[in-house]
Amino acid sequence: MTPEVHIALVHHPVLNKTGEIVATAVTNLDIHDNARSARTYGLASYHIVTPLDAQVELVSRILGHWRNGFGARRVPNRVDAMNLVRVSRTLEDVIGEIERDAGKRPFVVATAARRLPGALRYAELRERIGREPGPYLIVFGTGYGLAGSVIEAADALLEPIGDPGDWNHLSVRAATAITLDRLLGL
Amino acid sequence: MTPEVHIALVHHPVLNKTGEIVATAVTNLDIHDNARSARTYGLASYHIVTPLDAQVELVSRILGHWRNGFGARRVPNRVDAMNLVRVSRTLEDVIGEIERDAGKRPFVVATAARRLPGALRYAELRERIGREPGPYLIVFGTGYGLAGSVIEAADALLEPIGDPGDWNHLSVRAATAITLDRLLGL
Repeated sequence: MTPEVHIALVHHPVLNKTGEIVATAVTNLDIHDNARSARTYGLASYHIVTPLDAQVELVSRILGHWRNGFGARRVPNRVDAMNLVRVSRTLEDVIGEIERDAGKRPFVVATAARRLPGALRYAELRERIGREPGPYLIVFGTGYGLAGSVIEAADALLEPIGDPGDWNHLSVRAATAITLDRLLGL
Repeated sequence: MTPEVHIALVHHPVLNKTGEIVATAVTNLDIHDNARSARTYGLASYHIVTPLDAQVELVSRILGHWRNGFGARRVPNRVDAMNLVRVSRTLEDVIGEIERDAGKRPFVVATAARRLPGALRYAELRERIGREPGPYLIVFGTGYGLAGSVIEAADALLEPIGDPGDWNHLSVRAATAITLDRLLGL
């Protein structure tokens, strides 16, 4: 019984350096790296969340290049990874899409680099994923992390990867890879 | 007793898609992402290996920007990560530099995405790092992986991250992060 796990990378609402809520720009390597990590760990989908028309258009063009265009001919294995990528305007749209396909609302897990009360431990979530097939949606923030509203609306918050008292500024690409390995790695 | 662990990201000699030995170009995000992962996991240094003058110059300019220039003022925490980065022309130079500083040649561990005989398991290397303080040098390849000569010259080869019989095309940024978490994570 393979668990159904999805990830989302949120570009709005996220925090900037001073704690304001902003929309960040999509980074090309966020699409590629997380798609490759998603494919490696057998995820069901990888959602890029941005409300900005120009960014939705940009992601769609990049996906076309790597699924059907010159990129697909040059790096054929990348097609398998890029086929997992979706672009959505809000996290609620992502949740709705997964619910529509799975017939069940996903268990939504937010992530944060700071320690917050009541966070789920990696071992707990890994054990749950092994026991209940899901669907699960694990949500990562760009910029300086997910807005408080996203964390509050989630079903659970995952503990931080490192020691938040120490230096704790992993790239979101590295944090996503480590999180998937801890939850789903061999 | 904190172990002394270094990483190197090799741009030559590595393989291209058809198995030829090439020099790849340095990617800006490889510098940043791996420096941030290196700092998070308490590494002693992160070496970019490239024999190309123009690439050595490029890396030096990028490091200057993030250590002393506008980047350092805009993202002060990045300085701590970028201070770990070195640029070297060959892997032997890296080994020599570590040996000079530590008074002892590092235990050199190559990595590969394909399964090869005699590979060290993650748990074995983690246990060794906990027992013997090092120095250790873990070597990652860009392109389609380290040339056979690098793997043969290393003291050990680490097992692949995923199932090489299945889809196994992580980005080197993700592979580095996962490797450090498996070897040094809490």
